Amino acid sequence: MSQQLAVGIDIGGTNTVFGIVDRRGNILCDGKMSTKAHEEVTTFLEELHGHLSKLIEQVGGAANIKGIGVGAPNGNYYTGNIEYAPNLKWKGIIPLASMLQDLFNIPTLLTNDANAAAIGEMTYGAARGIRDFIMITLGTGVGSGIVANGQLIYGHDGFAGELGHIIVIPGGRLHPGTGAHGSLESYASATGVTNTAIEFLQTRTDDSILRNYPAEEINSKVIFDAAQKGDVLALEVYAYTGKVLGEALANFVMFSSPEAIILFGGLTKAGDLIMKPVREHMEKNLLPIFQNKVKLLFSELKESDAAILGASALAWEMKD
Amino acid sequence: MSQQLAVGIDIGGTNTVFGIVDRRGNILCDGKMSTKAHEEVTTFLEELHGHLSKLIEQVGGAANIKGIGVGAPNGNYYTGNIEYAPNLKWKGIIPLASMLQDLFNIPTLLTNDANAAAIGEMTYGAARGIRDFIMITLGTGVGSGIVANGQLIYGHDGFAGELGHIIVIPGGRLHPGTGAHGSLESYASATGVTNTAIEFLQTRTDDSILRNYPAEEINSKVIFDAAQKGDVLALEVYAYTGKVLGEALANFVMFSSPEAIILFGGLTKAGDLIMKPVREHMEKNLLPIFQNKVKLLFSELKESDAAILGASALAWEMKD
Repeated sequence: MSQQLAVGIDIGGTNTVFGIVDRRGNILCDGKMSTKAHEEVTTFLEELHGHLSKLIEQVGGAANIKGIGVGAPNGNYYTGNIEYAPNLKWKGIIPLASMLQDLFNIPTLLTNDANAAAIGEMTYGAARGIRDFIMITLGTGVGSGIVANGQLIYGHDGFAGELGHIIVIPGGRLHPGTGAHGSLESYASATGVTNTAIEFLQTRTDDSILRNYPAEEINSKVIFDAAQKGDVLALEVYAYTGKVLGEALANFVMFSSPEAIILFGGLTKAGDLIMKPVREHMEKNLLPIFQNKVKLLFSELKESDAAILGASALAWEMKD
Repeated sequence: MSQQLAVGIDIGGTNTVFGIVDRRGNILCDGKMSTKAHEEVTTFLEELHGHLSKLIEQVGGAANIKGIGVGAPNGNYYTGNIEYAPNLKWKGIIPLASMLQDLFNIPTLLTNDANAAAIGEMTYGAARGIRDFIMITLGTGVGSGIVANGQLIYGHDGFAGELGHIIVIPGGRLHPGTGAHGSLESYASATGVTNTAIEFLQTRTDDSILRNYPAEEINSKVIFDAAQKGDVLALEVYAYTGKVLGEALANFVMFSSPEAIILFGGLTKAGDLIMKPVREHMEKNLLPIFQNKVKLLFSELKESDAAILGASALAWEMKD
């Protein structure tokens, strides 16, 4: 039984993870290496080639591998290039898919990490059997992948689905990375939650556990712990974040009318603290024809596995 | 040569237009009747059947007709139903496509009017050959149709693409029809332009031709005429409307990354008065990877023909 395995590679600004996956989403073997240690993509690929070649041998050689899927920041599905990724050291346009394909002689597809997450969820996770959904990744930043009619929406240039950069509060909080004011990522990311807490601490006078920390030590973990202890200010940070995110989700629903929105990443660990206001404000802002229809789901993939699984799922979409 | 013609029917709150169209978008014959004169859909269909049967005879009978396409408010492509259309007298769910199919014994598809406009533009107009675009209709209201990968996005329930109801200014102007605050339709429609002018007249003190009119006589035509004469306040109404619309379009681009946005309807008659600020504020709010890529186009269909053409184009999408 040949070609029943896929390679998944997720390239992050700090680290790269990779693994070999079967059709059911079992990771047979995997590994990790530094991305940022490599000033040049060529030495990065040399190291990756060394690691991955060993894993491929372990599973019986390249004849068993259907394809390589890569999730990477600013990854363009159509061209296979990483284009001007702000958080990578390799500047300009990197033809990563064709470089990998040449190295391993295995067909390779590439997309951005949030699109890969959406395909992973459709293949192995919460979106199995769902033809219309939106994946939102709530981590350091906010990423997204949009699926309609069972297909990922790449847009005319391969860059569709940048929902983290949609302006939700015109003239709102500055996003230092993009210069935009009021984008979703400025509120619904780990950084956003931290900035909301700092703003609340500055503009309000009520007591809070968070006042015991200097501003530079406030982060999403500290805020979560305070909220768990019933700290009112911390709870209201989540309520506010949930309101902004819920209002944004309502707008997204009126765009593509998905059956489900699937949430993934650090912020989802706050559970009902964030999900209750998200749901409330999403429903409140929907036209009646959309109300009480959209499922809000959490990812069903283990966070540690999701990046490899999502990338690997690209391989199953390849034509034989 | 049989089945080379299609019937297009556009049902509006006031009137219904219908016609027979060839594959190149020539309207061979057409007609018009009142919608609102009919309290019941049954008498509406009787009258429509009478008119259309004659037209179908004129073109050689039903054997020449590939299908009937219908554009209707709250039209659901999947079910063929009109569902709870606020501006029609027929309440609840009306299975219009199957009723027409039974009457004429011709296959019938139905969708909402803005989706029909998008398909019309793709078949006969400015979107020929474009696989990813967004159609925005700027009339009394704001409608939209979204095409990705060459397919109209209907969403899981058939109601995708309600971009007029996306909230662009949270807490902004009340939309009396929906109760929402700050939806695009409250600003970028004929009514929106009128309300912006009335607000400007109330909150500003500068001279304006528009001050010669009582508030109830201010409308988009009066504002356009004043702007044409160089009236500063009227010009700023367009600048403001264009800003709100441009910011909304930037958000839409970051969703589906279309090759083009096609604008249709009354507001587009203001030409550069509106298009210059639209383009400026769209570009300003896009991430760099999206800038200077998206074409802003006007519809290429004559406004009087577009409704029939758009609806008729549904018929060419039917499987043989």
